[in-house]
Amino acid sequence: MTTAKDFLLSRIGVINTPFDSKFAVPRQARLAAGARGVIVLDDDYSDPNFVLGLEGCTHIWVSFVFHLVGASDKPTVRPPRLGGNERVGVFATRSTHRPNPLGLSVLKLDKVVLGGRTEIHVSGVDLVSGTPILDIKPYVPYVDSVADATYLMADQPPRTLKVVWTDQARNEFELISAKLNLTDMTGVEQILAQDPRPSYHNDEARVYGVSLEGIEFKFTVSENAVTIQGVA
Amino acid sequence: MTTAKDFLLSRIGVINTPFDSKFAVPRQARLAAGARGVIVLDDDYSDPNFVLGLEGCTHIWVSFVFHLVGASDKPTVRPPRLGGNERVGVFATRSTHRPNPLGLSVLKLDKVVLGGRTEIHVSGVDLVSGTPILDIKPYVPYVDSVADATYLMADQPPRTLKVVWTDQARNEFELISAKLNLTDMTGVEQILAQDPRPSYHNDEARVYGVSLEGIEFKFTVSENAVTIQGVA
Repeated sequence: MTTAKDFLLSRIGVINTPFDSKFAVPRQARLAAGARGVIVLDDDYSDPNFVLGLEGCTHIWVSFVFHLVGASDKPTVRPPRLGGNERVGVFATRSTHRPNPLGLSVLKLDKVVLGGRTEIHVSGVDLVSGTPILDIKPYVPYVDSVADATYLMADQPPRTLKVVWTDQARNEFELISAKLNLTDMTGVEQILAQDPRPSYHNDEARVYGVSLEGIEFKFTVSENAVTIQGVA
Repeated sequence: MTTAKDFLLSRIGVINTPFDSKFAVPRQARLAAGARGVIVLDDDYSDPNFVLGLEGCTHIWVSFVFHLVGASDKPTVRPPRLGGNERVGVFATRSTHRPNPLGLSVLKLDKVVLGGRTEIHVSGVDLVSGTPILDIKPYVPYVDSVADATYLMADQPPRTLKVVWTDQARNEFELISAKLNLTDMTGVEQILAQDPRPSYHNDEARVYGVSLEGIEFKFTVSENAVTIQGVA
């Protein structure tokens, strides 16, 4: 059996999210319910008919391109969930480093805004802002929700950290969030609770920084908690 | 925000299934558990490391190309589930007619066979034989199984028909299946129970034919049952 080997696909739109870079993106969709995003469909797909009936779904599948990573020909990866030491086949993981840099996330559909370019507002996002979107499909529970499925490598969500604000950081956040249309504090906490340090870092004295919607959060991480030290 | 608009993706392999044509393919994955398939990875991806640990999953996501359909720029489709008269936005459906002809199915993983080209044996397939595969990802229950999701247009599997064999058809099937490595009777019944007539047909006198693994099944359909009249 021979079929064509190469396929040219084009984006239908782009997603805007709080994540300015790969750093701090939750490791899976829906881990940070407060992480919101807006899929903006390109002109060619902004005819309102393309999304007619979409609000009959509570959740959608979004197929996208890992555009910051690109294609990888390495057969194995080292998932953070396995401590970063064990090698596993790329097709046994959701790693971003894969032969076709295709991502797949199930997101909660919040609302659809028509007029001009169609906006699809979603939450629980795990995509870098600017990610090109290839397709949107409804989540169909009787097909997609597999009651008896198991996955040996990760049967539970990753553990989350407690989030603590210093008084200074809280004051700084309130000053900035009053001026900007920012992700709310709950969203920020859900994102930082995922332990957004680069893999394998373990230095309690080090101050890390992460940019969310252009706002820089400085934080430290101890055994069980992340402490937000400052917001600028 | 501007990002690249076009992406060249290449198949990693091809799936062989009982479905010689679009006719008789179940409308979603897992509706016919006995419909088995074998994903054969291309040489470039048959290094056993690519699938290292894959058998730790009970189910996998398969991203593929609707190669018999191709890209569609029509904003709406008429889903069979809505009687074929109502128009719905393509992004609100799983229709094969979409801007990027990308398909997505969750399949049960039966076994992985190494040596030569890697074979990934799956069941509950809803893909035409020869479909190019772009990606394989594990089904991760804590992410992918969304307990509170709903989909207004189809909250239940489509109704299935009772399957009846005439004595002649049963004898013919037994003669053929003794000689060939065929899908078993249960699989055939699950496929035909999905009512594999072309949409909107409703002629009880008409004898339809469907080819599964090169075997032709002749059948008639009444209100509640499909009767297999002959197998050749």
